[in-house]
Amino acid sequence: MTRTVYVNGSYLPEDQASVSIFDRGFLMADGVYEVTSVLDGKLIDFAGHARRLQRSLSELDIENPLSDDEWLTIHRELVRLNDIDQGMIYLQVTRGAPGDRDFAFPDPAVTKPTVVLFTQNKPGLADTPMAQKGLKVISIEDIRWGRRDIKTVQLLYPSMGKMMAKKAGADDAWMTEDGFVTEGTSNNAYIVKGGRIITRHLGNEILHGITRAAVLKFAAEAQMEVEERSFTLAEAADADEAFITSASMFVMPVVELDGAAIGTGKPGPVATRLREIYLDESRKQAI
Amino acid sequence: MTRTVYVNGSYLPEDQASVSIFDRGFLMADGVYEVTSVLDGKLIDFAGHARRLQRSLSELDIENPLSDDEWLTIHRELVRLNDIDQGMIYLQVTRGAPGDRDFAFPDPAVTKPTVVLFTQNKPGLADTPMAQKGLKVISIEDIRWGRRDIKTVQLLYPSMGKMMAKKAGADDAWMTEDGFVTEGTSNNAYIVKGGRIITRHLGNEILHGITRAAVLKFAAEAQMEVEERSFTLAEAADADEAFITSASMFVMPVVELDGAAIGTGKPGPVATRLREIYLDESRKQAI
Repeated sequence: MTRTVYVNGSYLPEDQASVSIFDRGFLMADGVYEVTSVLDGKLIDFAGHARRLQRSLSELDIENPLSDDEWLTIHRELVRLNDIDQGMIYLQVTRGAPGDRDFAFPDPAVTKPTVVLFTQNKPGLADTPMAQKGLKVISIEDIRWGRRDIKTVQLLYPSMGKMMAKKAGADDAWMTEDGFVTEGTSNNAYIVKGGRIITRHLGNEILHGITRAAVLKFAAEAQMEVEERSFTLAEAADADEAFITSASMFVMPVVELDGAAIGTGKPGPVATRLREIYLDESRKQAI
Repeated sequence: MTRTVYVNGSYLPEDQASVSIFDRGFLMADGVYEVTSVLDGKLIDFAGHARRLQRSLSELDIENPLSDDEWLTIHRELVRLNDIDQGMIYLQVTRGAPGDRDFAFPDPAVTKPTVVLFTQNKPGLADTPMAQKGLKVISIEDIRWGRRDIKTVQLLYPSMGKMMAKKAGADDAWMTEDGFVTEGTSNNAYIVKGGRIITRHLGNEILHGITRAAVLKFAAEAQMEVEERSFTLAEAADADEAFITSASMFVMPVVELDGAAIGTGKPGPVATRLREIYLDESRKQAI
């Protein structure tokens, strides 16, 4: 089936969907994105993604081209047109296509942001066998730019990190800076030790995960102890269990780090329980 | 006049030139670029740019889609079609458009790199009055990723830096890391003290400027002393003169740093002489 995607006001077949070669997203990585999951044909934590989109755009001085209601309408229309039961909606906004290349930002009165959305159909997303197996991760140095809290399309290094993991026979990479874990290539990282959930505090160094916020809230509601602070690779290696969170992976156990088992080498009870709670609660609140 | 640009084998009017929304250049900043200057309708240091392009692509495991001869032919054809006497040819190669979004690299046997080139017509480029006036720069923190030696399209921060400079009434920004100047937003940075030219040594921290290499060679041939080492902002403030080099600015004096004059506050003799030598020699060797 040919996907229907959205580009600057039009719903188009995916093979006709293009942007100008002068788009600043293409020439300068001058754009931001969001990925919202779909379960049972409904959007998971849409409000959180809309809020973070607004923040990313504001940090880059790009005007939000649409209202939250308009974003919602497009998301829902794409779910409908592509008959998505489980999957993701990808959204990207760039500073637009000024018709030439210049480091200086174009006049926002003349050059309007580019808006692109498309669906990714992932039947079985919530029931992936990976959740029973757990992920293997390697550690790599975090050499990304300093504003990882802005969800920009500067994803070359995370993409390279994913390839380094693949080459090492692993599923993903955890990045470290000054000896501390920052996050995974496209997810937030957690360890569990003595019943406490430990995950890095927010700052410019990591993405402010929408799933992270929801999971920490659910954990607190379930009386789990949460510590938001940096942790080292040595702590991770010595942890009882580990996991990641992201919009498309939800809560996913991590069972191996740099070739060595974490805890029992199997998905732990905290990650497993949090995944259940997150999926249950998110489904209830989906719109 | 509508420009003729080059996209994946075709010469097209600029307003019809587009790339897929799934292009990894657009979605993930997974691409590299070069800018070659044109003087008298001829290419300046084409061989150097072709060599660096090959290096950037190799570092990212992207196959060079064209031979040096093929690149040269396209460059010359664009100069001819757009009647460029002075200006630039911009070239970008991305990992291509795999038809969906995934952090993992697509199979290179299936997904071929995207190739985009366009001209920028700049009459008077070599005689810009700016060379008599000199640039004002501000200093900003360098928060770019760690592999600035690869000429990727991750230009968001340099672009933001240019805007910070504009807001401060300056022309450009010099970036600093751990107290030392790395480079300008799209150029290499130099100071002159006691007749010695000082510019940062090569490494992952700065772009390996093609113009930088040529200028240092010409400087050595003219018996000027060159020191390749890091320098601080304090040294720059106390320098006799300062300048930058880039493919499109050639050698350009810098006369002010963070609001204070450097040296006399006017273009210095070393920068002025180097600009003359560089333009003369480059024109002689242009192809």
